[in-house]
Amino acid sequence: MSDPTRSALTDADRAYELDRAHVFHSWSAQGQIDPMVVTKAEGSYVWDGDGNRLLDFTSQLVFTNLGHQHPRIVAAIQEQAATLCTVAPAYVNGARSEAARLIASHTPGDLNRIFFTNGGADANEHAIRMARLHTGRQKVLSTYRSYHGGTHLAVNVTGDPRRWPNDNGSSGTVHFFGPFLYRSAFAATTEEEECQRALAHLEQVIALEGPGTIAAVILESIPGTAGVMIPPPGYLQGVRELCDRHGIVLIADEVMAGFGRAGRWFAIEHGDVAPDLLTFAKGVNSGYVPLGGVAINDAVYRTFEDRVYPGGLTYSGHPLACAAAVATIQTMEDDGIVQHAAALGDDVFGPRLADLAARHECIGEVRGTGAFWAIELVSDRETREPLAPYGGSSPAMAALIGACTRRGLLPFANVNRIHVVPPLTISAAEAVEGLDVLDAALSEIGARQ
Amino acid sequence: MSDPTRSALTDADRAYELDRAHVFHSWSAQGQIDPMVVTKAEGSYVWDGDGNRLLDFTSQLVFTNLGHQHPRIVAAIQEQAATLCTVAPAYVNGARSEAARLIASHTPGDLNRIFFTNGGADANEHAIRMARLHTGRQKVLSTYRSYHGGTHLAVNVTGDPRRWPNDNGSSGTVHFFGPFLYRSAFAATTEEEECQRALAHLEQVIALEGPGTIAAVILESIPGTAGVMIPPPGYLQGVRELCDRHGIVLIADEVMAGFGRAGRWFAIEHGDVAPDLLTFAKGVNSGYVPLGGVAINDAVYRTFEDRVYPGGLTYSGHPLACAAAVATIQTMEDDGIVQHAAALGDDVFGPRLADLAARHECIGEVRGTGAFWAIELVSDRETREPLAPYGGSSPAMAALIGACTRRGLLPFANVNRIHVVPPLTISAAEAVEGLDVLDAALSEIGARQ
Repeated sequence: MSDPTRSALTDADRAYELDRAHVFHSWSAQGQIDPMVVTKAEGSYVWDGDGNRLLDFTSQLVFTNLGHQHPRIVAAIQEQAATLCTVAPAYVNGARSEAARLIASHTPGDLNRIFFTNGGADANEHAIRMARLHTGRQKVLSTYRSYHGGTHLAVNVTGDPRRWPNDNGSSGTVHFFGPFLYRSAFAATTEEEECQRALAHLEQVIALEGPGTIAAVILESIPGTAGVMIPPPGYLQGVRELCDRHGIVLIADEVMAGFGRAGRWFAIEHGDVAPDLLTFAKGVNSGYVPLGGVAINDAVYRTFEDRVYPGGLTYSGHPLACAAAVATIQTMEDDGIVQHAAALGDDVFGPRLADLAARHECIGEVRGTGAFWAIELVSDRETREPLAPYGGSSPAMAALIGACTRRGLLPFANVNRIHVVPPLTISAAEAVEGLDVLDAALSEIGARQ
Repeated sequence: MSDPTRSALTDADRAYELDRAHVFHSWSAQGQIDPMVVTKAEGSYVWDGDGNRLLDFTSQLVFTNLGHQHPRIVAAIQEQAATLCTVAPAYVNGARSEAARLIASHTPGDLNRIFFTNGGADANEHAIRMARLHTGRQKVLSTYRSYHGGTHLAVNVTGDPRRWPNDNGSSGTVHFFGPFLYRSAFAATTEEEECQRALAHLEQVIALEGPGTIAAVILESIPGTAGVMIPPPGYLQGVRELCDRHGIVLIADEVMAGFGRAGRWFAIEHGDVAPDLLTFAKGVNSGYVPLGGVAINDAVYRTFEDRVYPGGLTYSGHPLACAAAVATIQTMEDDGIVQHAAALGDDVFGPRLADLAARHECIGEVRGTGAFWAIELVSDRETREPLAPYGGSSPAMAALIGACTRRGLLPFANVNRIHVVPPLTISAAEAVEGLDVLDAALSEIGARQ
């Protein structure tokens, strides 16, 4: 009250001013950003510093799967805070035990043990470590067009431009091509051909890298930020079979695709196979408290039954984060969230995005499932020239994002794509409202071109 | 209620049973542990599954600096949860802005910008990345007898046995010896000699590795888990001077030593110098919500003003974690916590641990400051043979830990050392209570030897 500067500013203004003075932002040139203030969020909506309401088609970074301020998760956090905010990982804690039980009850196969981390990056780092020690081998194969996290090893197995400035000093990482028919690396023209050729490619990479040197294949069950590329039928089974043949650990990265996003508890269920290790974060507790983890099958678990697992972290299995996970998973079970996400994909996003694609020349392809969709934008449908160059942006993409925001929609944009990744709790009416904004925004930029 | 198995078990029993069935523990052989259940915690105490109260001389993993269930932090978490649990890092959020302002108001020098992470490991990973990109160089020098975190790069710069099984595939990491008179690497016999020789050693390592290849020197301002080795007067200034001379970024790891633990806001204040980057976690919010970060000076910040910083994470600057940090720092300011920690060291731990050392043959040395102390245990005072071999344990250490726990004290043990690292809020009377238990436990194992 005694500070005249402070009293002259609104809370949003002060938050902005302090942010620019003291907060260093991810993946940004600090002097070239003008970040939006978020003052309030509820369900599928957020409010900016000027009081404008925006429909959140991003789930932030694809993590608020149960929307904003879900009352059951908020209550669970408040209750756990009142009881026991934290204990060290070495001790047993009820919230952590129950979260592990619930997660293991939904993971496929015999993924019965849960190692908790703070997020997806360290989950992937620890999964790779487990695979290396389990196999006694060093190499990790991962796909181009993938994202596995921001720490050193995680970003080095990543296959997107965020790796480039960090691509030093992590030996034993090898990249291969996954299936992506629209921009096929194999000159394929059908899904079946793409699947066969992608598997033959992986088989060759394994043979030429040396099967006995390869600890793990890590892949997103459905690559997320790289473009929501649904694997063709048979691909994941084929990868599983190659891994089995050569004693390679299969790590499924479900950080973005898991916990209902793809209309299944885990996206790998679409392929009807189980990985040896499965990593998660984001949707496990809607990101309300930082949490990630690795689900571990019995074979890998046995390696560390009488041998020390040489990894850990201060906040492994943090009670507050685990209590939020328990509430999230119970809500998903009780409210049929996974089924709702699947129905949104089948009944709303699938048909309506196909309709948009039919009407807008700049859409090259739409693809997805559940509440997990990508709109691939092109400047030329014949050549499939992307509307922004790989790893970059363009005036057309910036115009599209602006047109959405002005109309009250928060869009998820990456390079030449708009992803449709709202909370799984979004209603069909809200979903249609957002798609109508996209429709109008696409018309606006289409008219300009 | 319909589950007869469940109703037959207490909550603690069920938590234990589910833990053993589903939770994978850090740094452990899973089949060889029998973890203690923690059902309740308050102030300086925790309660186990059988209802026994234990004085927490560990602050868990040296992070609950304001003790357990501090009402101001609990209330701040509950209020933030009710308002806005989370937003993506790209947006501005009031809790994050205020946390950054408060942290920057206490960091030394011109460390004015804060990049938030989930914990200490990723804070160190990002600090190294910033240093590499800022200098255009690759190598990182770190000390033996250090710990910098569990992810791949962080554990590779670490200088303790936890690195050994992970020491593959991270090029450009070089280890040197820091000052540690009790086990001098330089045959020194005085603090002054140790300081001079340690600096001459670092100067040689820099010269022989090639000054123009070295991006950063990273060190704990006071090495923590490795043994609370207080740097001799002049050492940190000497390192700062060497870094300045060669354009090397100095990274101070204050994950454990920072936020009051060493009787100063940051331990590097003891050396009266400012680093270029300072990493933190743990004490920043007493670990009530996972949070870490990097404080960045103006020179490094300017590198990323017009150039993208190629790093980030989903939960960077998580509002719930930042709200807990705001409450923690404000409490530290209002209640004089840092001064209290300094006084505990000067008036209680210092003199009373010296008294223990005078009376127990198995104590080779006690050292520390504030609420940050190590008791170095030896089987022979002359040869300084440690009571457990480097990286291992021993029956004598296990007996000592058991003797403490039976008497109601939770001790922090590492190899041949007991660290005295209670909450900074511990009262002098509680501190004395714990030291009396240690005294009795030391007598018990002394009598047995």
